Amino acid sequence: MNIEMIRAANDRLEGHVRRTPLLNSPFLDEIAGRRVWVKPECLQHTGSFKFRGGWSAVSAMDADVRKHGVLAFSSGNHAQGVALAASRHGVPAVIIMPSDAPQMKIDNTRALGAEVVLYDRATEDRDAISAGILAERRLTLIKPFDDAMVIAGQGTCGLEIAEQAREEGIGHADVLVCCGGGGFASGIALALESDAPGLRVRPAEPEGFDDMARSLASGAIERNDRQSGSLCDAILTPQPGAMTFPILSRLAGPGLVVTEDEAMHAVALAFSRLKLVAEPGGAVALAAALFHSGEIEGEDVIVTISGGNVDADVFRQALERFGG
Amino acid sequence: MNIEMIRAANDRLEGHVRRTPLLNSPFLDEIAGRRVWVKPECLQHTGSFKFRGGWSAVSAMDADVRKHGVLAFSSGNHAQGVALAASRHGVPAVIIMPSDAPQMKIDNTRALGAEVVLYDRATEDRDAISAGILAERRLTLIKPFDDAMVIAGQGTCGLEIAEQAREEGIGHADVLVCCGGGGFASGIALALESDAPGLRVRPAEPEGFDDMARSLASGAIERNDRQSGSLCDAILTPQPGAMTFPILSRLAGPGLVVTEDEAMHAVALAFSRLKLVAEPGGAVALAAALFHSGEIEGEDVIVTISGGNVDADVFRQALERFGG
Repeated sequence: MNIEMIRAANDRLEGHVRRTPLLNSPFLDEIAGRRVWVKPECLQHTGSFKFRGGWSAVSAMDADVRKHGVLAFSSGNHAQGVALAASRHGVPAVIIMPSDAPQMKIDNTRALGAEVVLYDRATEDRDAISAGILAERRLTLIKPFDDAMVIAGQGTCGLEIAEQAREEGIGHADVLVCCGGGGFASGIALALESDAPGLRVRPAEPEGFDDMARSLASGAIERNDRQSGSLCDAILTPQPGAMTFPILSRLAGPGLVVTEDEAMHAVALAFSRLKLVAEPGGAVALAAALFHSGEIEGEDVIVTISGGNVDADVFRQALERFGG
Repeated sequence: MNIEMIRAANDRLEGHVRRTPLLNSPFLDEIAGRRVWVKPECLQHTGSFKFRGGWSAVSAMDADVRKHGVLAFSSGNHAQGVALAASRHGVPAVIIMPSDAPQMKIDNTRALGAEVVLYDRATEDRDAISAGILAERRLTLIKPFDDAMVIAGQGTCGLEIAEQAREEGIGHADVLVCCGGGGFASGIALALESDAPGLRVRPAEPEGFDDMARSLASGAIERNDRQSGSLCDAILTPQPGAMTFPILSRLAGPGLVVTEDEAMHAVALAFSRLKLVAEPGGAVALAAALFHSGEIEGEDVIVTISGGNVDADVFRQALERFGG
């Protein structure tokens, strides 16, 4: 896994992915006590950064293999990213989703042309289900984060951050990245190592699902006790990836952990101050910048909003509780 | 009023204004029956295109005059645009606002450093109030739309649309622009006349406040009966401007008129499909593209989302009624 793979992915993504802007607001700066720069991947195709990795993986496949189709398991954002990448390549996609995934993510994945197979997290074995389908239909599995082509695709967001930081005159800053399995954080970390060595990735996670923060602190892969039961559904994973953890262990600063309330408050502030729709899991990095400023150093902080695929009732909750 | 003034404004805005992206969604295309391209000026500084005109006007002033400060009357978006432009130029701003303007717009205008003077639309004379302050404090009035430098600033959005349409291969299309007094629409129309003659502006307005549509149809300036009482507060003006109407009369196609419900539905769809926060008045062009497709021709349509400064309770209403 190296920077050349990210640059190659960037070439494949050219003209297919959105270059998202870098936004700011004096109101957020005031809360955080420093300048806050926001990279809104909620504006990416399919509403999250996952389209970058999905496109990268599908576009890198040999056409003879790709034509049979791809398979992914995902609670929603990776599902949509892979579904759209597959349909734009004209190949089938089968997505295995937990039946308790947000309804809009299930609906959107189907509407993007994928075949959705639902399973019950409590009683069914996802891996057994997918193994059966993979073998029978000659599909290729696209893993959500522990896949070099996926990490390379997510890393293209890091190339953009490096360039945009340079344009804004930001030489040194923490880059807070919403973190599940670590594909987004590790891709960005590799891009910054090469293109903006003064910028350092720091993973941001919700309380109770801080496996990456604990793993970085202990130096070994640590698991979460729970695997569901948070509004931050986009970034709940059992443990750091075998590929992503060594990258972040080498390149990332300490993890940041926010409460679910802080994430919901950040959703409301992204609404009022940035005019952006963030999902709770996509707002944990912004929450860390705003409400954990004592754990961050420097005059600037860069944060990703990793996705915006939130059900209307959860969003209304955030506005009712924290809306201005 | 000519294209050179828009290009000069564009030079003054360079590095101070955001170049907003051009977004789309397969889900919106399906509703509209054609490709829908969205120019989200809700992502502009201060949450609306008005910052363009505000910056253009303040930056064009002679420094000796500017130092005394500026005055504007506005229900909110022009207020915030002028307030931020003035404070970044280090000069005072006084903003005269109706006391029934959305609270967040009043609060934000103050927070951006302006002195806010509230008046009662029903019982007080705004012009008399502002005339007194102008004379006493040697301020310069920045009108919301009937001002060449303001129109030139709004027109910079049209330069961007022309360039982005070219990049997307869009040669011919209607460009639906949310319309109050017509500053945004006439600035864009002048820019397109020069840089993208295959694109034609069509003003979009809410029912009951369709003065521009009726004026374009009759060939003479027509007034609205009401001047308040719509959720589309951003674009309620008594009548087309003396400067803007002749421009639109020469360059614009027929106006489009949407119901308040259609605007609220478009707010909900911008939330779910674009991850954008639009205010009702800022969503009328999108509503026209989605729900009045029979009145539009061509394979593509471009729409502005002119602003996103909406109170949380109005936004929650839109999601409750139309949220997916």
